[in-house]
Amino acid sequence: MSRQQLLKVQNFVVSRDGFGTGENQSLERPFGSADPAELMSWAGATASWPNRTDPGGSRGLDDYFTRDFSHNIGAEIMGRNKFGPERGPWVNYDWQGWWGDEPPFHTPVFVMTHHVRPSFTLSDTTFHFVDDEPAAVLRRAKEEAQGKDVRLGGGATTIREFLEADLVDTLHVVVSPVKIGAGVRFWESPDELRDRFHLEVVPSASGVTHHIFWRK
Amino acid sequence: MSRQQLLKVQNFVVSRDGFGTGENQSLERPFGSADPAELMSWAGATASWPNRTDPGGSRGLDDYFTRDFSHNIGAEIMGRNKFGPERGPWVNYDWQGWWGDEPPFHTPVFVMTHHVRPSFTLSDTTFHFVDDEPAAVLRRAKEEAQGKDVRLGGGATTIREFLEADLVDTLHVVVSPVKIGAGVRFWESPDELRDRFHLEVVPSASGVTHHIFWRK
Repeated sequence: MSRQQLLKVQNFVVSRDGFGTGENQSLERPFGSADPAELMSWAGATASWPNRTDPGGSRGLDDYFTRDFSHNIGAEIMGRNKFGPERGPWVNYDWQGWWGDEPPFHTPVFVMTHHVRPSFTLSDTTFHFVDDEPAAVLRRAKEEAQGKDVRLGGGATTIREFLEADLVDTLHVVVSPVKIGAGVRFWESPDELRDRFHLEVVPSASGVTHHIFWRK
Repeated sequence: MSRQQLLKVQNFVVSRDGFGTGENQSLERPFGSADPAELMSWAGATASWPNRTDPGGSRGLDDYFTRDFSHNIGAEIMGRNKFGPERGPWVNYDWQGWWGDEPPFHTPVFVMTHHVRPSFTLSDTTFHFVDDEPAAVLRRAKEEAQGKDVRLGGGATTIREFLEADLVDTLHVVVSPVKIGAGVRFWESPDELRDRFHLEVVPSASGVTHHIFWRK
Protein backbone atom coordinates (compact mmCIF):
# COMPACT_ATOMS: atom_id res chain seq x y z
CA MET A 1 0.00 0.00 0.00
CA SER A 2 1.14 3.58 -0.48
CA ARG A 3 1.89 5.12 2.85
CA GLN A 4 0.64 8.45 4.13
CA GLN A 5 3.33 10.88 5.33
CA LEU A 6 2.50 11.92 8.88
CA LEU A 7 3.25 15.08 10.85
CA LYS A 8 4.19 13.86 14.33
CA VAL A 9 4.88 15.48 17.69
CA GLN A 10 7.17 13.18 19.70
CA ASN A 11 8.43 13.26 23.29
CA PHE A 12 7.14 16.81 23.80
CA VAL A 13 7.29 17.53 27.54
CA VAL A 14 4.70 19.69 29.29
CA SER A 15 4.64 20.58 32.98
CA ARG A 16 1.68 19.37 35.03
CA ASP A 17 0.34 22.92 34.93
CA GLY A 18 0.45 22.93 31.12
CA PHE A 19 3.59 24.89 30.19
CA GLY A 20 6.18 23.90 27.56
CA THR A 21 8.86 26.25 28.93
CA GLY A 22 9.23 28.86 31.65
CA GLU A 23 9.60 32.62 31.34
CA ASN A 24 12.68 34.58 30.25
CA GLN A 25 14.39 32.27 27.79
CA SER A 26 18.07 33.16 27.39
CA LEU A 27 21.23 31.72 25.86
CA GLU A 28 22.11 30.09 29.18
CA ARG A 29 18.54 28.96 29.92
CA PRO A 30 16.78 27.53 26.83
CA PHE A 31 13.78 26.63 29.04
CA GLY A 32 13.81 30.01 30.82
CA SER A 33 12.79 29.75 34.47
CA ALA A 34 12.10 26.00 34.05
CA ASP A 35 14.80 23.37 34.61
CA PRO A 36 15.25 21.17 31.52
CA ALA A 37 17.13 18.50 33.51
CA GLU A 38 14.07 18.08 35.71
CA LEU A 39 11.61 18.10 32.79
CA MET A 40 13.71 15.63 30.74
CA SER A 41 14.86 13.30 33.54
CA TRP A 42 12.39 10.57 32.43
CA ALA A 43 14.11 10.50 29.01
CA GLY A 44 17.66 10.86 30.27
CA ALA A 45 17.22 7.72 32.39
CA THR A 46 16.48 5.51 29.34
CA ALA A 47 18.96 3.34 27.44
CA SER A 48 17.97 4.93 24.10
CA TRP A 49 18.35 8.60 25.08
CA PRO A 50 20.31 10.08 22.14
CA ASN A 51 22.66 12.07 24.40
CA ARG A 52 23.60 9.08 26.58
CA THR A 53 27.37 8.67 26.84
CA ASP A 54 27.61 5.65 29.16
CA PRO A 55 26.10 2.16 28.79
CA GLY A 56 23.11 1.25 30.94
CA GLY A 57 19.80 3.03 31.31
CA SER A 58 16.30 1.64 31.72
CA ARG A 59 14.59 -0.40 29.00
CA GLY A 60 11.04 -0.09 30.30
CA LEU A 61 8.08 1.80 28.87
CA ASP A 62 9.84 5.19 28.62
CA ASP A 63 12.57 3.63 26.49
CA TYR A 64 10.04 2.76 23.76
CA PHE A 65 9.41 6.49 23.36
CA THR A 66 13.04 7.61 23.23
CA ARG A 67 13.83 4.66 20.93
CA ASP A 68 11.03 5.72 18.57
CA PHE A 69 12.36 9.28 18.19
CA SER A 70 14.02 8.79 14.78
CA HIS A 71 11.82 5.96 13.49
CA ASN A 72 10.90 6.74 9.86
CA ILE A 73 11.48 10.49 10.35
CA GLY A 74 12.79 12.35 7.28
CA ALA A 75 12.63 16.01 8.40
CA GLU A 76 11.90 18.20 11.43
CA ILE A 77 10.05 21.50 11.74
CA MET A 78 10.79 23.73 14.74
CA GLY A 79 10.05 27.25 15.92
CA ARG A 80 12.84 29.79 16.07
CA ASN A 81 12.92 29.66 19.88
CA LYS A 82 13.88 25.99 19.75
CA PHE A 83 16.86 26.99 17.61
CA GLY A 84 18.08 29.87 19.78
CA PRO A 85 17.15 32.72 22.12
CA GLU A 86 17.68 35.65 19.71
CA ARG A 87 14.64 37.66 18.65
CA GLY A 88 14.35 39.97 15.62
CA PRO A 89 17.01 40.29 12.88
CA TRP A 90 20.11 38.11 13.30
CA VAL A 91 23.09 40.16 14.51
CA ASN A 92 25.49 37.70 12.87
CA TYR A 93 25.52 34.10 11.69
CA ASP A 94 28.40 32.84 13.81
CA TRP A 95 26.26 31.21 16.46
CA GLN A 96 24.67 28.05 14.99
CA GLY A 97 22.01 27.14 17.50
CA TRP A 98 21.69 25.19 20.74
CA TRP A 99 22.28 21.78 19.19
CA GLY A 100 26.07 21.50 19.08
CA ASP A 101 28.29 20.07 16.36
CA GLU A 102 26.31 16.80 16.26
CA PRO A 103 22.64 17.79 16.37
CA PRO A 104 20.34 14.87 17.28
CA PHE A 105 18.11 15.33 14.20
CA HIS A 106 20.17 13.75 11.35
CA THR A 107 17.71 15.15 8.78
CA PRO A 108 16.85 18.51 7.24
CA VAL A 109 15.42 20.86 9.89
CA PHE A 110 13.09 23.75 8.98
CA VAL A 111 13.29 26.65 11.44
CA MET A 112 10.26 28.94 11.23
CA THR A 113 11.21 32.61 11.49
CA HIS A 114 10.33 35.99 10.01
CA HIS A 115 14.08 36.60 9.67
CA VAL A 116 15.54 34.13 7.19
CA ARG A 117 19.26 33.43 6.96
CA PRO A 118 21.34 31.09 4.79
CA SER A 119 21.02 27.33 5.33
CA PHE A 120 23.98 25.55 6.93
CA THR A 121 24.95 21.99 7.77
CA LEU A 122 26.29 20.57 11.03
CA SER A 123 27.29 16.90 10.75
CA ASP A 124 24.30 15.23 9.01
CA THR A 125 21.73 17.89 9.97
CA THR A 126 20.97 20.82 7.64
CA PHE A 127 19.11 23.83 9.06
CA HIS A 128 16.86 25.80 6.68
CA PHE A 129 15.21 29.08 7.75
CA VAL A 130 11.73 29.67 6.38
CA ASP A 131 9.27 32.56 6.63
CA ASP A 132 5.99 30.97 5.58
CA GLU A 133 2.62 29.58 6.70
CA PRO A 134 2.55 26.20 8.50
CA ALA A 135 0.93 24.44 5.50
CA ALA A 136 3.64 25.69 3.12
CA VAL A 137 6.46 24.75 5.49
CA LEU A 138 4.95 21.29 5.90
CA ARG A 139 4.74 20.82 2.11
CA ARG A 140 8.42 21.63 1.77
CA ALA A 141 9.40 19.41 4.73
CA LYS A 142 7.44 16.48 3.26
CA GLU A 143 9.27 16.87 -0.05
CA GLU A 144 12.62 16.82 1.73
CA ALA A 145 11.55 13.86 3.86
CA GLN A 146 11.34 11.69 0.72
CA GLY A 147 8.34 9.62 1.75
CA LYS A 148 9.19 9.48 5.44
CA ASP A 149 7.28 11.25 8.22
CA VAL A 150 7.93 14.77 9.49
CA ARG A 151 8.57 15.53 13.16
CA LEU A 152 7.11 18.73 14.60
CA GLY A 153 9.69 19.49 17.26
CA GLY A 154 8.10 22.39 19.13
CA GLY A 155 8.06 24.56 21.09
CA ALA A 156 4.56 24.98 22.45
CA THR A 157 3.69 28.01 20.28
CA THR A 158 4.74 26.30 17.06
CA ILE A 159 2.79 23.12 17.86
CA ARG A 160 -0.30 25.22 18.66
CA GLU A 161 0.00 26.94 15.25
CA PHE A 162 0.05 23.60 13.44
CA LEU A 163 -2.86 22.33 15.55
CA GLU A 164 -4.85 25.48 14.67
CA ALA A 165 -4.23 24.72 11.00
CA ASP A 166 -5.29 21.07 11.61
CA LEU A 167 -2.03 19.72 10.19
CA VAL A 168 -0.95 17.41 13.04
CA ASP A 169 -1.55 13.64 12.67
CA THR A 170 -0.14 12.26 15.93
CA LEU A 171 1.05 13.81 19.21
CA HIS A 172 2.96 12.21 22.01
CA VAL A 173 2.92 14.64 24.96
CA VAL A 174 4.74 13.73 28.17
CA VAL A 175 3.16 15.33 31.22
CA SER A 176 5.87 15.83 33.85
CA PRO A 177 5.11 15.93 37.59
CA VAL A 178 7.03 19.25 37.66
CA LYS A 179 5.14 22.55 38.03
CA ILE A 180 6.46 25.60 36.13
CA GLY A 181 3.98 28.27 37.24
CA ALA A 182 4.36 30.71 34.34
CA GLY A 183 5.79 30.64 30.82
CA VAL A 184 4.72 29.46 27.38
CA ARG A 185 1.44 27.62 27.77
CA PHE A 186 0.76 24.49 25.72
CA TRP A 187 -2.71 23.64 27.02
CA GLU A 188 -5.09 24.07 29.90
CA SER A 189 -5.98 20.38 29.67
CA PRO A 190 -5.48 17.43 27.28
CA ASP A 191 -9.25 17.34 26.89
CA GLU A 192 -9.00 20.33 24.52
CA LEU A 193 -7.80 17.97 21.78
CA ARG A 194 -10.34 15.18 22.29
CA ASP A 195 -12.74 16.42 19.64
CA ARG A 196 -10.25 15.80 16.86
CA PHE A 197 -8.00 13.11 18.34
CA HIS A 198 -8.17 9.72 19.99
CA LEU A 199 -6.35 9.85 23.31
CA GLU A 200 -4.67 7.15 25.38
CA VAL A 201 -3.22 8.17 28.76
CA VAL A 202 -0.44 5.88 30.00
CA PRO A 203 1.24 6.48 33.39
CA SER A 204 4.90 5.49 33.61
CA ALA A 205 6.90 4.19 36.57
CA SER A 206 9.19 7.23 36.16
CA GLY A 207 6.41 9.56 37.30
CA VAL A 208 5.51 11.09 33.92
CA THR A 209 2.24 10.37 32.13
CA HIS A 210 2.37 9.67 28.41
CA HIS A 211 -0.48 11.19 26.40
CA ILE A 212 -0.79 9.57 22.97
CA PHE A 213 -3.08 11.33 20.49
CA TRP A 214 -3.90 10.31 16.96
CA ARG A 215 -6.30 11.85 14.49
CA LYS A 216 -9.90 10.58 14.41
CA MET B 1 30.29 4.30 22.88
CA SER B 2 30.40 0.73 21.57
CA ARG B 3 26.98 -0.78 21.76
CA GLN B 4 26.08 -4.12 23.32
CA GLN B 5 24.19 -6.52 21.03
CA LEU B 6 20.99 -7.55 22.82
CA LEU B 7 18.90 -10.70 22.62
CA LYS B 8 15.28 -9.49 22.67
CA VAL B 9 11.88 -11.11 22.93
CA GLN B 10 9.32 -8.81 21.28
CA ASN B 11 5.52 -8.90 21.05
CA PHE B 12 5.37 -12.44 22.44
CA VAL B 13 1.74 -13.19 23.31
CA VAL B 14 0.77 -15.36 26.27
CA SER B 15 -2.76 -16.25 27.35
CA ARG B 16 -3.92 -15.04 30.75
CA ASP B 17 -3.44 -18.59 32.02
CA GLY B 18 0.18 -18.60 30.87
CA PHE B 19 0.22 -20.55 27.57
CA GLY B 20 2.02 -19.55 24.36
CA THR B 21 -0.03 -21.90 22.16
CA GLY B 22 -2.73 -24.51 22.54
CA GLU B 23 -2.52 -28.27 22.11
CA ASN B 24 -2.30 -30.24 18.85
CA GLN B 25 -0.42 -27.92 16.51
CA SER B 26 -1.04 -28.82 12.85
CA LEU B 27 -0.45 -27.36 9.38
CA GLU B 28 -3.89 -25.75 9.47
CA ARG B 29 -3.61 -24.64 13.11
CA PRO B 30 -0.17 -23.18 13.94
CA PHE B 31 -1.45 -22.31 17.44
CA GLY B 32 -3.19 -25.68 17.89
CA SER B 33 -6.41 -25.41 19.87
CA ALA B 34 -5.81 -21.65 20.44
CA ASP B 35 -7.10 -19.03 18.00
CA PRO B 36 -4.24 -16.82 16.72
CA ALA B 37 -6.68 -14.16 15.46
CA GLU B 38 -7.96 -13.75 19.00
CA LEU B 39 -4.48 -13.73 20.57
CA MET B 40 -3.10 -11.29 17.99
CA SER B 41 -6.10 -8.96 17.65
CA TRP B 42 -4.37 -6.22 19.72
CA ALA B 43 -1.54 -6.15 17.15
CA GLY B 44 -3.73 -6.52 14.06
CA ALA B 45 -5.65 -3.39 15.07
CA THR B 46 -2.53 -1.17 14.97
CA ALA B 47 -1.37 1.01 12.07
CA SER B 48 2.11 -0.57 12.10
CA TRP B 49 1.07 -4.24 12.01
CA PRO B 50 3.36 -5.72 9.31
CA ASN B 51 0.56 -7.72 7.67
CA ARG B 52 -1.79 -4.73 7.36
CA THR B 53 -3.07 -4.32 3.80
CA ASP B 54 -5.37 -1.30 4.21
CA PRO B 55 -4.61 2.18 5.56
CA GLY B 56 -5.87 3.10 9.03
CA GLY B 57 -5.33 1.31 12.31
CA SER B 58 -4.77 2.69 15.79
CA ARG B 59 -1.69 4.75 16.70
CA GLY B 60 -1.98 4.43 20.47
CA LEU B 61 0.22 2.55 22.93
CA ASP B 62 0.00 -0.84 21.17
CA ASP B 63 1.29 0.72 17.96
CA TYR B 64 4.60 1.59 19.64
CA PHE B 65 5.17 -2.12 20.14
CA THR B 66 4.31 -3.26 16.61
CA ARG B 67 6.30 -0.29 15.23
CA ASP B 68 9.33 -1.35 17.27
CA PHE B 69 9.34 -4.92 15.88
CA SER B 70 12.16 -4.41 13.36
CA HIS B 71 14.01 -1.58 15.13
CA ASN B 72 17.76 -2.35 15.01
CA ILE B 73 17.13 -6.12 14.58
CA GLY B 74 19.72 -7.97 12.48
CA ALA B 75 18.70 -11.62 12.94
CA GLU B 76 15.98 -13.82 14.46
CA ILE B 77 16.20 -17.12 16.32
CA MET B 78 13.11 -19.37 16.42
CA GLY B 79 12.18 -22.87 17.46
CA ARG B 80 11.27 -25.42 14.80
CA ASN B 81 7.59 -25.29 15.77
CA LYS B 82 7.44 -21.62 14.82
CA PHE B 83 8.69 -22.61 11.36
CA GLY B 84 6.28 -25.50 10.76
CA PRO B 85 4.29 -28.35 12.31
CA GLU B 86 6.46 -31.30 11.12
CA ARG B 87 8.30 -33.31 13.75
CA GLY B 88 11.31 -35.64 13.19
CA PRO B 89 13.22 -35.93 9.90
CA TRP B 90 11.99 -33.72 7.02
CA VAL B 91 10.01 -35.76 4.50
CA ASN B 92 10.94 -33.30 1.75
CA TYR B 93 12.05 -29.70 1.39
CA ASP B 94 9.19 -28.46 -0.81
CA TRP B 95 7.24 -26.82 1.99
CA GLN B 96 9.07 -23.67 3.11
CA GLY B 97 7.38 -22.77 6.37
CA TRP B 98 4.36 -20.83 7.55
CA TRP B 99 5.69 -17.42 6.59
CA GLY B 100 4.77 -17.14 2.91
CA ASP B 101 6.78 -15.68 0.03
CA GLU B 102 7.39 -12.40 1.91
CA PRO B 103 8.29 -13.40 5.47
CA PRO B 104 8.05 -10.50 7.95
CA PHE B 105 11.62 -10.96 9.24
CA HIS B 106 13.79 -9.37 6.48
CA THR B 107 16.95 -10.75 8.16
CA PRO B 108 18.66 -14.12 8.55
CA VAL B 109 16.50 -16.48 10.65
CA PHE B 110 18.02 -19.36 12.63
CA VAL B 111 15.60 -22.28 13.11
CA MET B 112 16.64 -24.56 15.98
CA THR B 113 16.11 -28.24 15.12
CA HIS B 114 17.81 -31.61 15.55
CA HIS B 115 17.12 -32.21 11.85
CA VAL B 116 19.09 -29.75 9.78
CA ARG B 117 18.30 -29.04 6.13
CA PRO B 118 19.81 -26.69 3.53
CA SER B 119 19.38 -22.94 4.00
CA PHE B 120 17.03 -21.16 1.60
CA THR B 121 15.95 -17.59 0.90
CA LEU B 122 12.42 -16.18 0.50
CA SER B 123 12.43 -12.51 -0.53
CA ASP B 124 14.90 -10.83 1.87
CA THR B 125 14.70 -13.52 4.59
CA THR B 126 17.16 -16.44 4.68
CA PHE B 127 16.31 -19.45 6.85
CA HIS B 128 19.21 -21.40 8.37
CA PHE B 129 18.63 -24.69 10.24
CA VAL B 130 20.90 -25.27 13.21
CA ASP B 131 21.33 -28.17 15.66
CA ASP B 132 23.21 -26.59 18.54
CA GLU B 133 23.05 -25.21 22.07
CA PRO B 134 21.36 -21.83 22.64
CA ALA B 135 24.69 -20.07 23.37
CA ALA B 136 26.25 -21.32 20.14
CA VAL B 137 23.19 -20.39 18.06
CA LEU B 138 23.20 -16.91 19.63
CA ARG B 139 26.90 -16.43 18.80
CA ARG B 140 26.22 -17.24 15.16
CA ALA B 141 23.11 -15.03 15.03
CA LYS B 142 25.06 -12.09 16.52
CA GLU B 143 27.75 -12.49 13.85
CA GLU B 144 25.13 -12.45 11.11
CA ALA B 145 23.36 -9.46 12.73
CA GLN B 146 26.45 -7.31 12.09
CA GLY B 147 26.27 -5.25 15.25
CA LYS B 148 22.48 -5.11 15.44
CA ASP B 149 20.33 -6.87 18.04
CA VAL B 150 18.92 -10.39 17.74
CA ARG B 151 15.22 -11.15 18.14
CA LEU B 152 14.25 -14.35 19.95
CA GLY B 153 10.99 -15.13 18.17
CA GLY B 154 9.61 -18.03 20.20
CA GLY B 155 7.73 -20.23 20.78
CA ALA B 156 7.40 -20.62 24.51
CA THR B 157 9.72 -23.63 24.76
CA THR B 158 12.53 -21.93 22.87
CA ILE B 159 12.28 -18.76 24.97
CA ARG B 160 12.37 -20.86 28.16
CA GLU B 161 15.56 -22.58 26.94
CA PHE B 162 17.29 -19.23 26.41
CA LEU B 163 16.04 -17.97 29.78
CA GLU B 164 17.45 -21.12 31.45
CA ALA B 165 20.81 -20.35 29.84
CA ASP B 166 20.51 -16.71 31.05
CA LEU B 167 20.99 -15.35 27.53
CA VAL B 168 17.95 -13.04 27.27
CA ASP B 169 18.46 -9.28 27.75
CA THR B 170 14.93 -7.90 27.29
CA LEU B 171 11.47 -9.46 27.04
CA HIS B 172 8.23 -7.85 25.96
CA VAL B 173 5.42 -10.28 26.81
CA VAL B 174 1.84 -9.39 25.94
CA VAL B 175 -0.66 -11.00 28.29
CA SER B 176 -3.93 -11.49 26.41
CA PRO B 177 -7.33 -11.60 28.15
CA VAL B 178 -7.92 -14.92 26.32
CA LYS B 179 -7.75 -18.22 28.24
CA ILE B 180 -6.28 -21.27 26.43
CA GLY B 181 -6.66 -23.94 29.15
CA ALA B 182 -3.97 -26.39 27.95
CA GLY B 183 -0.98 -26.31 25.63
CA VAL B 184 2.60 -25.12 25.70
CA ARG B 185 3.13 -23.29 28.97
CA PHE B 186 5.29 -20.15 29.07
CA TRP B 187 4.98 -19.32 32.77
CA GLU B 188 2.85 -19.74 35.85
CA SER B 189 3.33 -16.05 36.66
CA PRO B 190 5.48 -13.10 35.51
CA ASP B 191 6.89 -13.02 39.05
CA GLU B 192 9.11 -16.00 38.14
CA LEU B 193 11.40 -13.63 36.26
CA ARG B 194 11.62 -10.84 38.84
CA ASP B 195 14.82 -12.11 40.43
CA ARG B 196 16.80 -11.48 37.25
CA PHE B 197 14.77 -8.77 35.51
CA HIS B 198 13.23 -5.39 36.15
CA LEU B 199 9.52 -5.51 35.29
CA GLU B 200 7.08 -2.81 34.22
CA VAL B 201 3.44 -3.83 33.77
CA VAL B 202 1.47 -1.55 31.44
CA PRO B 203 -2.24 -2.16 30.75
CA SER B 204 -3.46 -1.16 27.29
CA ALA B 205 -6.87 0.13 26.17
CA SER B 206 -7.09 -2.91 23.85
CA GLY B 207 -7.43 -5.25 26.83
CA VAL B 208 -3.93 -6.75 26.77
CA THR B 209 -1.30 -6.03 29.43
CA HIS B 210 2.24 -5.33 28.29
CA HIS B 211 4.97 -6.84 30.48
CA ILE B 212 8.33 -5.23 29.85
CA PHE B 213 11.36 -6.98 31.37
CA TRP B 214 14.98 -5.95 31.19
CA ARG B 215 18.01 -7.49 32.81
CA LYS B 216 19.08 -6.24 36.25
